[in-house]
Amino acid sequence: MAGEFDLIARHFTRPVRRAALGVGDDCALLRPVPGMQLAVSCDMLVEGRHFLSTVAPERLGHKALAVNLSDLAACGAEPLACTLALALPRADEAFVAGFAQGLFGLADAHGIELVGGDTTAGPLNICITVIGQVPPGQALLRSGARAGDELWVSGALGDARLALEVFRGQVAMTALTGDDFESLRRAMEQPQPRVALGLALRGVASSAIDLSDGLAGDLGHILQRSGVGATVNVDALPRSAILAAQTAALQHECLVAGGDDYELLFTAPPGQADAVRAAGRAAGVAVTRCGSIEDRPGLRVVGADGQPLARSFRGYDHFA
Amino acid sequence: MAGEFDLIARHFTRPVRRAALGVGDDCALLRPVPGMQLAVSCDMLVEGRHFLSTVAPERLGHKALAVNLSDLAACGAEPLACTLALALPRADEAFVAGFAQGLFGLADAHGIELVGGDTTAGPLNICITVIGQVPPGQALLRSGARAGDELWVSGALGDARLALEVFRGQVAMTALTGDDFESLRRAMEQPQPRVALGLALRGVASSAIDLSDGLAGDLGHILQRSGVGATVNVDALPRSAILAAQTAALQHECLVAGGDDYELLFTAPPGQADAVRAAGRAAGVAVTRCGSIEDRPGLRVVGADGQPLARSFRGYDHFA
Repeated sequence: MAGEFDLIARHFTRPVRRAALGVGDDCALLRPVPGMQLAVSCDMLVEGRHFLSTVAPERLGHKALAVNLSDLAACGAEPLACTLALALPRADEAFVAGFAQGLFGLADAHGIELVGGDTTAGPLNICITVIGQVPPGQALLRSGARAGDELWVSGALGDARLALEVFRGQVAMTALTGDDFESLRRAMEQPQPRVALGLALRGVASSAIDLSDGLAGDLGHILQRSGVGATVNVDALPRSAILAAQTAALQHECLVAGGDDYELLFTAPPGQADAVRAAGRAAGVAVTRCGSIEDRPGLRVVGADGQPLARSFRGYDHFA
Repeated sequence: MAGEFDLIARHFTRPVRRAALGVGDDCALLRPVPGMQLAVSCDMLVEGRHFLSTVAPERLGHKALAVNLSDLAACGAEPLACTLALALPRADEAFVAGFAQGLFGLADAHGIELVGGDTTAGPLNICITVIGQVPPGQALLRSGARAGDELWVSGALGDARLALEVFRGQVAMTALTGDDFESLRRAMEQPQPRVALGLALRGVASSAIDLSDGLAGDLGHILQRSGVGATVNVDALPRSAILAAQTAALQHECLVAGGDDYELLFTAPPGQADAVRAAGRAAGVAVTRCGSIEDRPGLRVVGADGQPLARSFRGYDHFA
C-alpha cells in the first residue's frame, strides 16, 4: 500500500501555470490580478449526507469541486485555484486515482488549479476551498434583491432529489427507463456549476444564490439578507420530462425542497429580462422566470392559479 | 437543539474589518494588497489522529487554527484570513461555543479574520484553510537549502510527543508533577505558531518548514526539494527540563521523530548566524543551531561525539 506522501504526489501534484507555486511546500503562492477582489468559499462533503457510498470516485471528485465552483458562480466570480483536504479510511489507490480524475476533469474545464491540500486517515471526508476573483463592486450578493424584482432560476430543478428518492426506494426504479435513471443519477452525482452564467449576470442580476439546500431554504437566505419577501409560482419552475411525469406532490417536493440542484436562483429588475435571457444564451443555460420579489415578508409558494399550495416547505438542515 | 444556521450565525459570524465581505454569503470577498503574493494552505484534523477526544473544545479551536498558521509561518507569510469547515456528530452548543472561543482567541492574536465556512453533521472533522500574504520572491521555501548552510530550529522539541506517551501510558504520570503534566499537555494541545519568527526570517533563512510530522520526516522534505543532505546533532536539539529528565532513548524518539511540535526548522548560510539570532530575539523565540547541510545525500543523526546513533528514525505517515 502506498504511503501518504507517495499517494498525494502521484495523483494530486501537477505543474501549475497561473499560480507561482503549487502543491508540495508549506503554502501555495498565488499572484492575484491587481485591483481584483478575491472570492473565497469552502464546502465539506460527508458520506451519507452529501453523497451515497455507491457513487463512483470519478463522479465524487467532480461533485466535490462542482459544489464549490457553484458558490463562485453564485458570486459572479471567475475561478482561480482550489485546495483539497481529504480524509480517507485507508490509502485506497483506485479511489484516489478516480477521485483525482473527476476533480481534474472539472478543474481543467474551468481553468482552475489545485494548489495545495492535506490527506489524512479518517472517516471519508472531503473539504475543498475555492478562490476566485471579481472586479470590486461587481460580486453578486444575497442582499441585493428589491421589491419589484423578478425571480429567475437556471436549468431544471428537482432531478437530484428525485434520484435520491429512487435510491431510497420511495420511487420505484421499475417506473423509469434505464436512460431515465442514469439521467437522474447524473443530476445528483455530476452537477454542472453555472460559472459562465454567474459571470454573464454581473451587472444584470440584483442578487443571487446557488441552490444546494432546496429552493425554499436558499431563497429564504436572499429574502432574509435583502429584507424582502417573495411569491414563487411552482408551476413555472423548470423541470425535466422525467420529473414532470411524477405525481404533483412529489414534483412540488423535489422542486421546492429538493436540494443538490446547484442551479442559480437570482433576482433582476423587470427591465433586465432581455439581458437575463441574453446571459442565459451566452452561457448556454436555460433561464426561467418563476416568481417575484415583494415588500411583504415571507415566502409564498403558489400554483398557476395564484392560490397558495396547501402545504409548507422547509430548507434542508444538516442537523435536523 | 439549535439548527445548523443558528449555530453558525451565533458562534462564527462576526463583523469583518479587513475583508470586504465575511461569513453569510456564497463567498467571502477579500481585498488583497496590490503587488503581494497570496500564500494558501489547508490542514484537516481528525479525532484520534491529530487530537485526543479528551481535549477541551477551546484548545481544539486554538490548535486547529495554530497548525494552519504554522504553515504560513514556515512560508514567511503574514496571516490575513481563514475559512473553517466543521463536521460534528451533533449540534453541540457547548462544544461549538468553546471551539469558537479558542479559535477566535488565536485569530485575534494574529489579526486574522474568519471569512467563511461550512458546517455539517458527520464524524468530527475540522478543516481550516488560511490565506496570507508575502512580497513576491520573499517566501521561505523548502527548496532553498544549500550545502554549507547551518540548520536551526525554534523553541523546544519533543514535549508534545512526550505528552502523547503519557496519555498512551508509556510514561508513568506518577513520574511527573502536576505542573509538568500540564506543561506537556499544553505543548500538545496549544502549540504557538511561530508567525513572528517566520516574518523575521525573510531574507535571512534559505529554507524553512514547520515541524508537524517530526524532525526526521520534515527535514527530509527540505533535503529532497533542495537536493542536499544533512547531519543533525541530537544533543544540540533544544528540549524542556521535563524531557531532559527522561531516558536517552525516549528523548531521541521525542526530539527526532516526535511530531506536533509546530516549531520552525530552517537553514541559513553561516554568515547569517547573527541575523538569525536577532530574528529570534525580535520574535521572542529561542533559536538553536542543531546541524548542517551537506552535499552528501541523506540524513545523519549523530551524538555530541559525532558518531551516528545506533537507530533509525522515520517520518510520520498518516496511513502507516
